[in-house]
Amino acid sequence: MADFSQARAPFSSLKIVGSGLIGTSIGLGLIGRGISIEMQDSDPRAQKLARDLVKSQELVNPEVILFALPSSALPESLKRELALNSGSKFIDIGSVKTKPLLDVSRSALLPANFLATHPMAGREVGGAESARADLFQSRTWVYMPADLQGLPVDPELLAAGLWIIQALGATPVAMSAAEHDRAVALVSHLPQVVASLLAGQLVTGESSALDLAGSGLRDTTRIAASKADLWDEILASNAEELLPLLISLQSDLGALVEALQNGQSVASFIEKGNTGRAMIPGKHGGAAREYTYLPVVIEDKPGQLAALFDECASAKVNIEDLTIEHSPGQFTGLITLALSQSDAQILSDHLIGSGWKVHAPR
Amino acid sequence: MADFSQARAPFSSLKIVGSGLIGTSIGLGLIGRGISIEMQDSDPRAQKLARDLVKSQELVNPEVILFALPSSALPESLKRELALNSGSKFIDIGSVKTKPLLDVSRSALLPANFLATHPMAGREVGGAESARADLFQSRTWVYMPADLQGLPVDPELLAAGLWIIQALGATPVAMSAAEHDRAVALVSHLPQVVASLLAGQLVTGESSALDLAGSGLRDTTRIAASKADLWDEILASNAEELLPLLISLQSDLGALVEALQNGQSVASFIEKGNTGRAMIPGKHGGAAREYTYLPVVIEDKPGQLAALFDECASAKVNIEDLTIEHSPGQFTGLITLALSQSDAQILSDHLIGSGWKVHAPR
Repeated sequence: MADFSQARAPFSSLKIVGSGLIGTSIGLGLIGRGISIEMQDSDPRAQKLARDLVKSQELVNPEVILFALPSSALPESLKRELALNSGSKFIDIGSVKTKPLLDVSRSALLPANFLATHPMAGREVGGAESARADLFQSRTWVYMPADLQGLPVDPELLAAGLWIIQALGATPVAMSAAEHDRAVALVSHLPQVVASLLAGQLVTGESSALDLAGSGLRDTTRIAASKADLWDEILASNAEELLPLLISLQSDLGALVEALQNGQSVASFIEKGNTGRAMIPGKHGGAAREYTYLPVVIEDKPGQLAALFDECASAKVNIEDLTIEHSPGQFTGLITLALSQSDAQILSDHLIGSGWKVHAPR
Repeated sequence: MADFSQARAPFSSLKIVGSGLIGTSIGLGLIGRGISIEMQDSDPRAQKLARDLVKSQELVNPEVILFALPSSALPESLKRELALNSGSKFIDIGSVKTKPLLDVSRSALLPANFLATHPMAGREVGGAESARADLFQSRTWVYMPADLQGLPVDPELLAAGLWIIQALGATPVAMSAAEHDRAVALVSHLPQVVASLLAGQLVTGESSALDLAGSGLRDTTRIAASKADLWDEILASNAEELLPLLISLQSDLGALVEALQNGQSVASFIEKGNTGRAMIPGKHGGAAREYTYLPVVIEDKPGQLAALFDECASAKVNIEDLTIEHSPGQFTGLITLALSQSDAQILSDHLIGSGWKVHAPR
């Protein structure tokens, strides 16, 4: 596939309809890439913030119009833009494809020059104020090279879409609407339902119990903080793909409850979870990467982190990731560095030689 | 409560029976605190590794014996130690309290000088090789000041237990066995079941679908990697507290499925999850802490991280945590620093003044 990430844009003007988290992040990420951008939103406050952030300009006949809206708002918005800018090319970024696009098609609104896409990125907080230029960096971005009838998308529109995706640092992945909807039901909509239902069980919990919560409960329920109206719409519009998964989950839950009630082993349920968990690829949707983790205990005094990274630089190793474990209120620390196995060995030898407290890599 | 974290130990010798993740981490964490430690395990390989790591000594009549074992192994092990060391004081760290302790009591084995405790710490990987001296740092550690009959624990034994807990950097929390078991059913056992069942649904997923997995699915299923035999035992021994929670979850899942099937809104389920999620206290079980997050884009060249931390040191700010977002294979980066609001402002001004690419704090 052509790499457009550094190339000049194949169009000169872009109107982004919808100035929430996704729309504003797209706008921010395309600043300085040689195109004029107009931000729009039905909420004047969001529109003003997004226009300031993105240095929005008023456009006449924008070449490309990108809808960053909940699916339910798409038909109305598309109708308005078609009336104003019939010569534009259209792109959407909705979380579900088949049903919303069929809804638009049924109103005879879906133009030939419409590219359906979906960036696999988001945050559990929304709005223009949460937008980040790097939101899509290293993420997957699904696009549909053909429409629901199987007709290929106009090549110029496709090039514009691929340019936007790659300019934002994302990796384009071609899928049909049906494949996409089945996939997101499993990797996005099912985890959302499960996290929400789990977090829902906490509402009757005593605070002395919740005070014992560790990282397990926190990680398992992180996405339960997501917006209810947005997710209500997403789950409803993909109910056809989601329901069989929920029914399978119901069946497994019922079998586990019965086993526990009868004093039978539930190890097979945990093992099935082990297998499923191992099938998830590594960070950011790329292939699973195996890092070696090198724990280093640093002293609670200024400049220790800087000194540690000076050592990393002089050992010429690549730090892929790191975590800090610290006590509340101040920095005292166990730093765990993630590196390739060979770099971990080089760095470990180097640090031990310089008197650092390095623990065994794992 | 007395703070024993820096005090001398109120005993001189400790035998740790069980050299897995928890036992070995306790041993590692108590090195250099002025007590003699003996590590033991029924698995000779684990015992050898733990003895090397902890610099274990052979003890005659250890004052305190700590059992770091699955509950099912406790009665047999306790019987053996009572025969050998009838004058010792005993401590356990089992994940469930009521049923395992009743099982021991029924065999007329539970000695008067027995302190039941449970550290709220762990990892999804096990064994002596995963042990960390800092595993309990800033975590909660539950202890039962009275036995199942309500008789108070011997004050010398209680002092020994509280010293161990605080010497390891944990915070002791007094609870009855029943309160503890009800609490962990909600904050630990229920999330484990939910994560395992969710991950179990992935086993029939297509790899093109799993390639779209983002941080939501990864976080929600992280603990699904936990050991099946260990968790089978934990869930079975706390079935009485866990089952009502599972049945409530079943009921909510059933109602959500019905709503989706009937085209009704499921927003109330997501909202209930929002409420539950907001009830979880902050990192490490302490009070929720509000950090300000300062994103800094750094260049892909050696020494940038070191230079950034040099700036932090010269601005005299405390970095509480940080994350790195990077592209596969090499370091290119968005560093997000977590600081107090005032430190974030100081650092942001400082970095902008020195030409760094600082984004708006959030």
